[in-house]
Amino acid sequence: MAPTPDNRPELSDIYTEDGSVRHDFLMMVGAAIADRDVIFLRNNVGRLHISELGDVLEAILPEQRIALINLLGDEFDLAALTEVDEAIRLEIVEQIPNEAIAAAIGELDSDDAVYILEDLDQEDREDILAKLPFTERVRLRRALDYPESSAGRRMQSEFVAVPPFWTVGQCIDYMREDEDLPETFTQIFVIDPTFKLLGNVDLDRILRSQRSTKIEDVMREMNHSIPAEMDQEEAAQLFQQYDLLSAAVVDENGRLVGVLTIDDVVDVIHEEAEEDIKRLAGVGDEELSDNVLSTVRSRFLWLFINLGTAFLSSSVIGLFDATIEQMVALAVLMPIVASMGGNAGTQTMTVTVRALATRDLDIYNAGRIIRRELGVGSSNGLMFAIMVGLAAGLMYHDVQLGVVIGIALFINFIAAAMAGNLVPLLLNRFGADPAVASSVFVTMVTDLTGFFGFLGLATLWFGLH
Amino acid sequence: MAPTPDNRPELSDIYTEDGSVRHDFLMMVGAAIADRDVIFLRNNVGRLHISELGDVLEAILPEQRIALINLLGDEFDLAALTEVDEAIRLEIVEQIPNEAIAAAIGELDSDDAVYILEDLDQEDREDILAKLPFTERVRLRRALDYPESSAGRRMQSEFVAVPPFWTVGQCIDYMREDEDLPETFTQIFVIDPTFKLLGNVDLDRILRSQRSTKIEDVMREMNHSIPAEMDQEEAAQLFQQYDLLSAAVVDENGRLVGVLTIDDVVDVIHEEAEEDIKRLAGVGDEELSDNVLSTVRSRFLWLFINLGTAFLSSSVIGLFDATIEQMVALAVLMPIVASMGGNAGTQTMTVTVRALATRDLDIYNAGRIIRRELGVGSSNGLMFAIMVGLAAGLMYHDVQLGVVIGIALFINFIAAAMAGNLVPLLLNRFGADPAVASSVFVTMVTDLTGFFGFLGLATLWFGLH
Repeated sequence: MAPTPDNRPELSDIYTEDGSVRHDFLMMVGAAIADRDVIFLRNNVGRLHISELGDVLEAILPEQRIALINLLGDEFDLAALTEVDEAIRLEIVEQIPNEAIAAAIGELDSDDAVYILEDLDQEDREDILAKLPFTERVRLRRALDYPESSAGRRMQSEFVAVPPFWTVGQCIDYMREDEDLPETFTQIFVIDPTFKLLGNVDLDRILRSQRSTKIEDVMREMNHSIPAEMDQEEAAQLFQQYDLLSAAVVDENGRLVGVLTIDDVVDVIHEEAEEDIKRLAGVGDEELSDNVLSTVRSRFLWLFINLGTAFLSSSVIGLFDATIEQMVALAVLMPIVASMGGNAGTQTMTVTVRALATRDLDIYNAGRIIRRELGVGSSNGLMFAIMVGLAAGLMYHDVQLGVVIGIALFINFIAAAMAGNLVPLLLNRFGADPAVASSVFVTMVTDLTGFFGFLGLATLWFGLH
Repeated sequence: MAPTPDNRPELSDIYTEDGSVRHDFLMMVGAAIADRDVIFLRNNVGRLHISELGDVLEAILPEQRIALINLLGDEFDLAALTEVDEAIRLEIVEQIPNEAIAAAIGELDSDDAVYILEDLDQEDREDILAKLPFTERVRLRRALDYPESSAGRRMQSEFVAVPPFWTVGQCIDYMREDEDLPETFTQIFVIDPTFKLLGNVDLDRILRSQRSTKIEDVMREMNHSIPAEMDQEEAAQLFQQYDLLSAAVVDENGRLVGVLTIDDVVDVIHEEAEEDIKRLAGVGDEELSDNVLSTVRSRFLWLFINLGTAFLSSSVIGLFDATIEQMVALAVLMPIVASMGGNAGTQTMTVTVRALATRDLDIYNAGRIIRRELGVGSSNGLMFAIMVGLAAGLMYHDVQLGVVIGIALFINFIAAAMAGNLVPLLLNRFGADPAVASSVFVTMVTDLTGFFGFLGLATLWFGLH
């Protein structure tokens, strides 16, 4: 295929129906990289949206990435690196000379520049910053000085700000003439001479007002300005709650330092939900592109903790080895009691962890939720106790064994409901992230209750041992 | 406390540091409801942002809700119902006469109106629609005709659209004079006389352009218009990928029918992540406000399926009852092998399910991911095999038992890596939602491999039975 500017694929064309990058497109790109076909690459890859370019970078082979970037040259938009996994970003940035990064970073919005700089090691970061023009450097350094994951880190330092005594007409003329406006914006801010934030005006309000209207008469006083030190997750909550598109970021003196925009907040919402899902399963902040070693490391701790609880359960079983020796059916049936309890506990726990994360649960309505979970646990517990009791009784032709396992199962459902609620609530109360540690404790409770309850009850009931 | 308009709490004041509604505020509201103190309620509750009002409605007692709404009267903004759980919304709507709902719904943006109407039963919905003015009714019915969870359902039917030959000045004059504009908007659309969509212009672009500029010269041709039938999740992906603030929704003929805005998309992103977390734990689409009965029902199926797999595992153990009788240590240790495998499998599965959901994984890079997981599984498997082998060998003073459990554990880690990858991939391949069913199958594989591997190996090794 002889590529010309006219036959480049439609933008939406690089994806399959599933939303992954088309295999034949990747093959063409791979061939063009091998052939050093700069024209094809600039026409077909260089003009992609940065998020599409990011997807292409993730999908091609590691050794092709830097080759592609070098072939694209000036056509490569460094902002695409904000769209790839951290491991890939670092791998790419390490192979580009600091001069080239400094030159490219000047073209980026400050939030994108910070996003790329913050992951670099101290030395490279300082080297790149030193190569930037003064105002740019000051601006980026200020953002980098705010804590990781704070609003100050995610904000964009470019914004439009006007004094309150200007008219709508003056604002419009200013925007028509000024070359140095942010690339896109949806509101302008109103400040006093010391940069203290007074209010904001959405662009649609400006467009609806007469030219002679004073800005102070159409501005909205700020309810939702965001302190630069605020955690990004908290800022995201505010955006969600008040349906904000952008919000002013202010320093400790109430002075405007930047603007946080919804697109960054959407990424934060996404990351935080992702984090919770992964933490519940004990895989930390792992990414798909992490290598074997770092993945092994990130999963080890969780498995190690689980090993501890597994040995604890095992030692409970060990208490009853004489009982099991006399009645081996107990060993056969005991995993059922533990497993059902574990699943019921996980259900309750997941609902509780999410309710805490979305702030729908607190100590005042906890009582109501616990009562509900006890209701659910005892209802399901009763039904499954009867089913399992009947099944076990029939299998072993032993009514008493059926009664024992039924009672043990019911008890474990109640334990599951209590633990599934209380473990995340208590962890939260003591400042720990309930998503990280709940599941190991809940499973521990249901395993211990399951084994101890069933084997202990059987020992008492049958007078074994 | 004698409430006057001046001492109403600051807006942000109704929340505690944790983000839940302050208990003392709820107590004051409760007392005011009991005293029928309309002035206090209108000043302190009626002026809250709809999302704050929604939180208050969720936090007070069920019997207080309708009383509060009645006391607020016209001050109650029906849009607050879009901010509460579905169960609470239905409970409230059922207690308000259809006339009152119809009157209030006319004041809402069409997307909020649809959100409330779509959950009602057919009869109530028709009754309310019949009471609305003609254009309103047509507009809402059209949105309701689109499938549930489609872009057409979530869109707002109010938008600003202009012909391409207008100048920027004409547009600004039109926006200054027209009373019937949407409440807020960030872009205007360009259409031909048949309402066919030609392009869009962001408001900041209009403000930067001279009055004499033609709209067609500043408009952007639409890459990202959204078919009304498109699933909301897919639309949300587009918003995220291209950092959109709003997007045109078009019918099958490319005619503009509405606009989808980022605030609704943020809710969709949130819901979808929530759904995945809950599905992984087998709690379906449950909400915190669901009652005991519907919660019992929603969790029963999952537990029932799990019961099946638990009996399957149990029957595998039953195959080796003679072995266990001779060597009860096997019963004591076997849960360790199953539990470690289950946890390792859950880790792999979670990463795979999320990678599928975020479209980072497909059949082309599946090979690479599976190889990585096998690497991780064998590394962690080896380490834990040695640890558990040593511990078991020491506990029972039996080197061979240590060797057997170590080998069984290693095998189970490999099975966990394979199942954790392949189960979600296969479910996805056959069109099932991997989040719903993966975890039951993965645990089944690791339980069966764990029990069968350990007990079978022990039987062979020790020549028992």
